[in-house]
Amino acid sequence: MTINLHKTIPAFRALRRTISPEKSIGFVPTMGALHAGHLSLVEAARKDNDIVVASIYVNPTQFGPNEDLDKYPRQFEADRKLLEELGVDHLFCPSEMYTKNHRCFVDPVGFDDLREGSARPGHFRGVATIVTKLFNIVKPTRAYFGQKDAAQCVLIKRLVEDFDMDTEIRVMPTVRENDGLAMSSRNAYLSDEERVVANIIYKSLSAAKEVFEGAFAGNLPMDSNIISETVISTLETEPLVKEIEYVAVDSKETMEPLKEIGPEGAIVSLAVKVGKVRLIDNFIL
Amino acid sequence: MTINLHKTIPAFRALRRTISPEKSIGFVPTMGALHAGHLSLVEAARKDNDIVVASIYVNPTQFGPNEDLDKYPRQFEADRKLLEELGVDHLFCPSEMYTKNHRCFVDPVGFDDLREGSARPGHFRGVATIVTKLFNIVKPTRAYFGQKDAAQCVLIKRLVEDFDMDTEIRVMPTVRENDGLAMSSRNAYLSDEERVVANIIYKSLSAAKEVFEGAFAGNLPMDSNIISETVISTLETEPLVKEIEYVAVDSKETMEPLKEIGPEGAIVSLAVKVGKVRLIDNFIL
Repeated sequence: MTINLHKTIPAFRALRRTISPEKSIGFVPTMGALHAGHLSLVEAARKDNDIVVASIYVNPTQFGPNEDLDKYPRQFEADRKLLEELGVDHLFCPSEMYTKNHRCFVDPVGFDDLREGSARPGHFRGVATIVTKLFNIVKPTRAYFGQKDAAQCVLIKRLVEDFDMDTEIRVMPTVRENDGLAMSSRNAYLSDEERVVANIIYKSLSAAKEVFEGAFAGNLPMDSNIISETVISTLETEPLVKEIEYVAVDSKETMEPLKEIGPEGAIVSLAVKVGKVRLIDNFIL
Repeated sequence: MTINLHKTIPAFRALRRTISPEKSIGFVPTMGALHAGHLSLVEAARKDNDIVVASIYVNPTQFGPNEDLDKYPRQFEADRKLLEELGVDHLFCPSEMYTKNHRCFVDPVGFDDLREGSARPGHFRGVATIVTKLFNIVKPTRAYFGQKDAAQCVLIKRLVEDFDMDTEIRVMPTVRENDGLAMSSRNAYLSDEERVVANIIYKSLSAAKEVFEGAFAGNLPMDSNIISETVISTLETEPLVKEIEYVAVDSKETMEPLKEIGPEGAIVSLAVKVGKVRLIDNFIL
């Protein structure tokens, strides 16, 4: 089956009107540069739904002024083929999503105070705005996001509840390379040497998980600093880790900081620069 | 026919799922305290659509801290009867629309700088947020708003375009009392004496219209101060007009101020206090 391309909002809307309300629609929004993480979302969508829609749109409003919007990897034809092979029915790939008169944005209060939010002011505002727009166009039954962007997953769930959107959010596990590095479109920026050592991120989170599981044998609540210090000390063994932007131990529900980890667990997340490349990852404890 | 009441979001959602996509749905969102202005919206919705939905919800997020949320008139049983008499099929009347974890709001950039926006900071944010929520629940084909709230109409049209909502916005003319006073739930706050003189608002806008139509005979563009000064000097003849909050001459499309009125016309709007009661009105020129 050939994938159906829809390059404008009116074109997708016209298609959407032809889909019976009895059909379930699984939606995977992406910025392209697809990797195995995205593909696992598509596979889940394919398994759960009658119709699968993917989108490719590099959303300018979620990039800060000094971020990598211009050089963000674009490889449309390769992406299209991958999605087609996985049986995606419709690909929404608009060239523009904002008119020059655009005024309304989603303001997710408090998200810029979270660790990933304060590192990228305005990022979550842009994410929430584009997801609102895409959901209103696609009207999906279910939408799929990756656990790697942990705060984004918390945000999208809040957005859907706060705005009463009729879409179920499914969060899928982070997909990793053989050496543990989390799949990311930004991994393409790494030099060969940086790529080899970048799995220090996975090692540092694994070390934290070991410490936590040791403590779990009857010693909760535990001081969350023990976890973050374990991560930091592991990261610091690698000289190509040029900057540890943050290592955070947060609530799984809200991504707000936890001083202590109780029986409900936590999420340990980090952002580091390997060489000049900013990478994020997290483990659920 | 008895009107169907739906008191919670899940209850309305359940009803909504039973409505065929072939049926058109006309929606009139209100805060209750219904008057002939609301009823004209309901009549238009009845004429245009297969199914008519009205909502009654006094939305706290659109009231400022010093505004009249607590004393806003509430008369549910009378409202229900009026809507039933006009053939409304479904009344959505939730007691609460925000969870304690609510975080996401619509930020309509620039609207707090408009005249009615700067008079009521945060008002349009609250309006845009509740309309987004209601539209996501009701999923109307068409929604109806009154021209009396001119900036609100501009906002809702922007919201629908910016967020790609699949709803048509219809703006209906302001309905007036016999003496010209615009219908408003807040008219109920006026004393008998204030009520008698409140039509000075209508007189002042009519005087401006006369001046404009005189000038229109070949004299455009005209200085918009001529219009606002005509309104102000008329209002100032009435001692019970205690405060002229603003008189503005704005673009019909954006509600941004116009120095000159050209052939495309303008909207002259005002907010005044008659006694302690804040009233707004506008004329399209």
